[in-house]
Amino acid sequence: MNIAILGGTGDEGLGLAMRFALAGDQILIGSRSQERAEQAAQTVRDTVPSAAVSGRANEDAAASADIVILSVPYGGQRATLESLATILQGKTLISVVVPLQFGKGGPHAVRVAEGSAAEEARAILPDVAIASAFHNLSATKLMDVQSDLDCDVVVCSDDAAAKRLTMELAETMRGVRALDGGALAYSRYVEDLTALILAMNRRYKAHASVRFTNLTVPEVAPIDGQRS
Amino acid sequence: MNIAILGGTGDEGLGLAMRFALAGDQILIGSRSQERAEQAAQTVRDTVPSAAVSGRANEDAAASADIVILSVPYGGQRATLESLATILQGKTLISVVVPLQFGKGGPHAVRVAEGSAAEEARAILPDVAIASAFHNLSATKLMDVQSDLDCDVVVCSDDAAAKRLTMELAETMRGVRALDGGALAYSRYVEDLTALILAMNRRYKAHASVRFTNLTVPEVAPIDGQRS
Repeated sequence: MNIAILGGTGDEGLGLAMRFALAGDQILIGSRSQERAEQAAQTVRDTVPSAAVSGRANEDAAASADIVILSVPYGGQRATLESLATILQGKTLISVVVPLQFGKGGPHAVRVAEGSAAEEARAILPDVAIASAFHNLSATKLMDVQSDLDCDVVVCSDDAAAKRLTMELAETMRGVRALDGGALAYSRYVEDLTALILAMNRRYKAHASVRFTNLTVPEVAPIDGQRS
Repeated sequence: MNIAILGGTGDEGLGLAMRFALAGDQILIGSRSQERAEQAAQTVRDTVPSAAVSGRANEDAAASADIVILSVPYGGQRATLESLATILQGKTLISVVVPLQFGKGGPHAVRVAEGSAAEEARAILPDVAIASAFHNLSATKLMDVQSDLDCDVVVCSDDAAAKRLTMELAETMRGVRALDGGALAYSRYVEDLTALILAMNRRYKAHASVRFTNLTVPEVAPIDGQRS
């Protein structure tokens, strides 16, 4: 699949690019600066020599992709989405955005009027199929491509096809189990959990992620959440 | 230790009572009705024959305990704490309260003005040492005392002694690892996560809990969070 990663020059975006490239997907790293996007693509190739990856300006990356992963800082989400509104029609958008603020009390989640960053994205682009996922993955662990990950990826969406596609994409990463987190309104719990994880990472000098125990996924996973 | 469990007649409180009784603690189950508290104590004895447990009215249970666990529905928190304000002075209060609402879209976290149920409790009782913990444990798994649990318990507090005591208490349960979740301001991420877990429990017919992966606890766990 052709996957654009907007904000792909940040650590989280780079790590996702490496993992998806490893799984054989065609990756387009998007940035406001084409030059920085090309540098990021080279970083991916340095780590994953087999990677099919190129760097583009955000709009070019999004235009050429079937799946667009949004991995920009929360503060840049609105401007990025508004500038790409026409290009994103008909594509699947996967939000990795976590609304965080870093104060003297440590990292904390910002309260979003729409409920979550993902629901704010939907309010900006009401006709685009949106899922949210990959919030709780450690960038460090993602970029350590020799090691399997050890985590669940909770996927939230109101669009059944987008949810299924995102869960399938998550499970192409070694060591990842995809879980149906329900409607996009559940995204805030997954987004906000990132603040706790980042604070514990500092305390325990860790790169933590999360697993849900006592939860077995049936052979054919149930997917709910029709577009409402 | 003498542990009072207020709201100990609900499933979560009963499950905690069974696990702590199993660990050898003296349990006082509190309820607004002494009769229902005594019935709950009998239920604990039926499951854990060695249990040192008795049922009391809430105020009698709290008065006789060193540690008071608050396991009432969020809607009953304020009235319960206000009525026990004098009795709770000098004790350690552990909040298990999760502010939940159940609508047609499934269980969701209620936004609390103070940030979390635990911070609201502190606003009501500013001079009581408060920790929050045990939110993400399945009542069903707690009551299945033959089986070890398989989860982490994240403890949040601004009081170092209350945090340490609560972490030690958590680790008396077989299969539990206690984690320092930081200040009480981090409680909302742990409380709110319960909504996601309950929704996934319905979807996957599970009794899920949570583990943080890629996080190792040193032999002597670092505890931060002095009373500020």
